[in-house]
Formats: sequence, C-alpha cells, structure tokens
Amino acid sequence: MRTLWWEDGALWMIDQRKLPTEYEIVTLVDCHDVAQAIKEMVVRGAPAIGVAAAFGLALAAQESDSVSRQTLMPDLEVAARELLAARPTAVNLRWAVDRMMRVAREDTDADVDALKHRLLAEAQALADEDVDINRRIGHNGAALIHDGSRVLTHCNTGALATVDYGTALGVIRAAVEQGKQVSVLADETRPLFQGARLTAWELMRDGIPVTLIADSAAGHFLRRREVDIVLVGADCIAANGDVVNKIGTYNLAVLAKENEVPFYSVAPVSTIDLSVPTGDDISIEERAAEEVTHIAGVQIAPDGVNVANPAFDVTPHRYVTAIVTENGIACPPFEFSLRRVVTQQERVGQ
Amino acid sequence: MRTLWWEDGALWMIDQRKLPTEYEIVTLVDCHDVAQAIKEMVVRGAPAIGVAAAFGLALAAQESDSVSRQTLMPDLEVAARELLAARPTAVNLRWAVDRMMRVAREDTDADVDALKHRLLAEAQALADEDVDINRRIGHNGAALIHDGSRVLTHCNTGALATVDYGTALGVIRAAVEQGKQVSVLADETRPLFQGARLTAWELMRDGIPVTLIADSAAGHFLRRREVDIVLVGADCIAANGDVVNKIGTYNLAVLAKENEVPFYSVAPVSTIDLSVPTGDDISIEERAAEEVTHIAGVQIAPDGVNVANPAFDVTPHRYVTAIVTENGIACPPFEFSLRRVVTQQERVGQ
Repeated sequence: MRTLWWEDGALWMIDQRKLPTEYEIVTLVDCHDVAQAIKEMVVRGAPAIGVAAAFGLALAAQESDSVSRQTLMPDLEVAARELLAARPTAVNLRWAVDRMMRVAREDTDADVDALKHRLLAEAQALADEDVDINRRIGHNGAALIHDGSRVLTHCNTGALATVDYGTALGVIRAAVEQGKQVSVLADETRPLFQGARLTAWELMRDGIPVTLIADSAAGHFLRRREVDIVLVGADCIAANGDVVNKIGTYNLAVLAKENEVPFYSVAPVSTIDLSVPTGDDISIEERAAEEVTHIAGVQIAPDGVNVANPAFDVTPHRYVTAIVTENGIACPPFEFSLRRVVTQQERVGQ
Repeated sequence: MRTLWWEDGALWMIDQRKLPTEYEIVTLVDCHDVAQAIKEMVVRGAPAIGVAAAFGLALAAQESDSVSRQTLMPDLEVAARELLAARPTAVNLRWAVDRMMRVAREDTDADVDALKHRLLAEAQALADEDVDINRRIGHNGAALIHDGSRVLTHCNTGALATVDYGTALGVIRAAVEQGKQVSVLADETRPLFQGARLTAWELMRDGIPVTLIADSAAGHFLRRREVDIVLVGADCIAANGDVVNKIGTYNLAVLAKENEVPFYSVAPVSTIDLSVPTGDDISIEERAAEEVTHIAGVQIAPDGVNVANPAFDVTPHRYVTAIVTENGIACPPFEFSLRRVVTQQERVGQ
C-alpha cells in the first residue's frame, strides 16, 4: 500500500479523513488541489505531506503555460508559497519544497519542457527515497525493541504518514519482521483521531496486536508498568533536540520520564532543522475550533465556546531518550549527534 | 439550578448525556431506574450519584409492598446492591447508601410507613447538605485562588456533578463571588466529554471565561506558564492522600508538578475513605469500548478494535499539593490531615 502515487499525469492519494470506515482514493490534477489536500488533512504526516508538496510543484510546472524557464519560475514560486502556507509547522514540507525549487533554479540549461520533466522525476525520486528511508529507520530502531515489548504510540506514524512503511510504526514493523512479538497501545489522538482511525487500522491490517486508548489514559498505563517504550514521530526537530510533534507528545514524554520508560522520536533527517536553535523557535499551527467542538458534524460543546487548538507541542530535549533516523540513532547531547546524522550517512553509535 | 430533586413522589434529574445541545429532565419512579441512570451516566459526578442513590433507596422503600420493617429490609438490601454495582469506584455512592441503610437498620421502633417517610427525609437532608457542603468547600478553596488566576480543570466538578454549586467549580464560583477575576482552561475529558459538554456549559452560563482544549493540550499550556493552578475533583481519596479521579487526572498532576504548578483535589469528606490505605487498593471501573470507538453513534475506529477504557486513574499523593474539603484544606502529610478533616468540623490549618 502506498499512501500517494503518481499515475496518468495526476497525484493519487488515500483520503485519510474517511478511514477507517471508508477507503477512498482522490485524484489531484493541480497544485492548488494539493495545497488544499494538505491543509484539510486528506494527506497528513510530515513525510507524506513533503512528498505530496513535491508532486504539487510538479503539477504546478505542468499547469504553467510558460514557454521559458524565466516565466515558469514565478509560477513555481507562487505554488511553493501556497504549499508552504498549508501547514506552517511541518519542516519536511519546507524541505521538500526547497529541494524541488533548488532543482528548478539550478537546472539553468534546461528548456521548459525538460525542466517540467525533471521536476516530476525529482518528486518521484523523493517518493521512492521516502520508502527506502523508512526501511532504514525501521532497521535502526528495531534494535530498541525487545521480544515482548509493549509500545505506546501517539498519532499516526505509519505507512499513511509517509509514502509507505512508516517512521515509528516502521520501527515496530521492522521488529515484527525480525520475529519479535510486539504489542501496541495506541493513543486515539484528539482532536482528529489519527490514532483511532489510522494507527489502529494499519496495525490491525498487519496483524500486530493493538489496543486503543483515550489520550488521557496513557499515564495510567505508564504508571502501572504496562508500557516498555514510547515511540512517536516528529514534525520538526530543532538543533538542540527539542521535538515538535502532534499535540500531546509532550505529555507522554513527561509521563514516560516520570515512570522511567524510554521515549524515542523517530523521523527522517529531513525533519531535523539545524537552523532552528530550540523547539520554542518554531511556530505552532493553531487549527480550527470545529475540530474540537464537532465530530463528524456532531456538536459536543456549547455554541460559541472559546477553543484553543494547537496542532503541535514542543517536547524539550531533556525528555527525549534518543532520536531514531535513517542515518543512525542520535543520543544526547543532541547538538553533536544531530549534526552527525544530518551530515553523514554512517550510523551514529549509541 | 439543581441537578436532581424530589417532586411529586419521584426523582427528577437533568439528563446530562444530552447537554449542551439539549436540556432534558427525566423522571425516575423506581429504584431500578435510578441504578440505570447512574450506570448510564444520566447523572454523574461522585456527590450527585451519592444523592441519587439515596433517593433510589427512598424509592425502593416506597415501592416495597412489605408491611413490616423485617420484610422491608431485604428489599432495601437488594436495592442497595444494585445501586452499588452501578458505578464500582465512586466512594460517595457507597457512603450515601451506607448512611441510608444505617437509618433503616437503626430506626428499630419505626413502623414501616414511618420508616419509608424517614428514608425519604434522610435523602432530602442529604441533598440539602450537599449544597451546603459545596458552599463551604468553595469558601475554603477560594483562598487558593488569586485575582487573575488561570485555572486548569478536568471533567465536570460543577453544579452538575453535585446537587448544586460544585466542588472544584464551586471553588471557582466562590472566588468569582469574592470579586476575583478567574479564567478557566477546561479539558474536554474523553471519552465522554464532560469538560466540553458540561463544564464549558456551566461556566458560560455563569459568565466565567472558559477555553476548551483537548485533554492532550493541557501539558502545552502548563509548559508555557499559562496555568496558575490545577483544580480537579475526586471519586475516592485513600487514607494516604492518593486521589482516584476521572481518567487523565494523573497526567495533569504529573505535568503540574513538572511545571511547578500547584495541584489540588477538591471534594467533600464523604469522598475520603480512611479504610482504604492507598489508591491502588481501589478497583478501577472499566467502561464499554463503544465510549471510545463511537461518538453519538459515529464510528471513529476500526470494527473490532481492542479498547482499554478505564474510567479513573490513581494520582499518588506525592503529586497532590493539598485536598480541599468542607472541613478545611488538608495538606501533606495526608495520613494526619485527612483524618483531621474527616473527624472534626473545624478548619484544618494549611
């Protein structure tokens, strides 16, 4: 299963808002639709939206009626801005857009058709690389999982959050492929229920034992020693190791530390932004009140109630045991280890 | 507004499952209906279900066609068992049932009609006392609230959780009555959304500023120093000060301690069970999976997914700054201070 793919000149993706009760594929034929799909979370998960945005730029290039590279560039820049604005926190989105724009800028000799072709090829390379990266992340992280491990996870970090395989769920898949018994406690992840809708669905499809809980029950199971390891993803990792991830991640990290359970963030190196000193330097996306007050159209809060709905929180690095990447596992002090995983391909020793 | 009251030979109560979109009153004419209403959370909140159960026993007495006290007692015992089984964790329920049964047992001279009358009078006294107790709790707790305090709360501890006024929300009401500006951050409280549906509704009716958040966002606001004090209720308090309360309370307590924010449990002394040494000696009610997988009939998780749905958790006393009761504020060491608030009427010094 791929979450998104290119076919017949269009981007196809699973509509993640409909899962698990409906499995629906949408076809996006222009860049504006891709930006909307990212904003409305038809596609979500930091790696997946990065790849979606890359295809969005390939579509923007194809849509453009420019006959020269000079007139194509402004069209691409407009498209890039729209894509970047769709989800302000996710660093993979910016990373993917920057990579595509670099190709466009650097390919100075290309005629406009060759450049359009080159951009599509780059987006496709990005998608294929993502699967390979996740496999490598899974291989590295599987060493942290013991036979019989009970993993607590938050949000969805699986195939649906990436092109395929997943980050934190990829680690679980790799451990299971190694023959280890692994069971998962999945936070439902309010407000959008990515844990209930997506993580539970993926794990059940793979036959990996999963138990769904309300987010607020996580502490109860940690305190009762029913969790051996916490694995989460990341939307942005700062140079000091602070992890910006789905709202509620900080709670888990504090509860894990309090109960002496290791807490790992699992993400590709494209999630690490060494130009950002700390997590508090990253702007946190505030999403619509309706995500909290309504569920599938059903109103659960009084009319007109004030709502705060930050999509992410910051987990300070002191709560993070280590960060698992495709280039190895980065341990504290993160100032050094993150730089190493970003700049080298070798595995960073634990 | 009273949450429940006696009128025309029946128990009337607000159907709390329907709020905030519908305000509906149900009339219960026999004890079995009362037990069902407690089980299905038509009425909830430890003090409110205690009073509901007391009226349930008054109804059981009236239903009984026994002509002697000796034959009435077995009917009452059957009713008491059904009421106690409705919510296994709440200690106020047992406290109220025990108090009613003591009246029945001790009133040896009463003829059966006099005893039926006496039981109804006792239930009514219990309801009136509850309002008075909440006012005293509010008065004691208001001293902890400063002008401008930003309070984080969980579940519903308001008028709807009691007969009127509330426990933790009663403290907020009392502080507001003293002229203090107080704003509230209300956890929505999955799975049943008592925060979104009931706390937000009550506070908006009173004109007290409230902002609704997903449970997992609480840590984010604590870390950002946007909370001055955490106030929660309690379903049972053990002799050592461990607090059993709505699932998610433990998370808040750990997050509050980590961020040096005081954490108070607010409850009547009837919630304190000195015969229970620690919170882990209390059985935690496990509720139906459907509370997590479905919301108002809308399915949000895959068919057949495993669910764990503990209704309560245990907050070890080391996270509890103090416990606010009608007989004063109990501070650590709780072994001594809780005994004092239970056995004396005077205010226990901080």
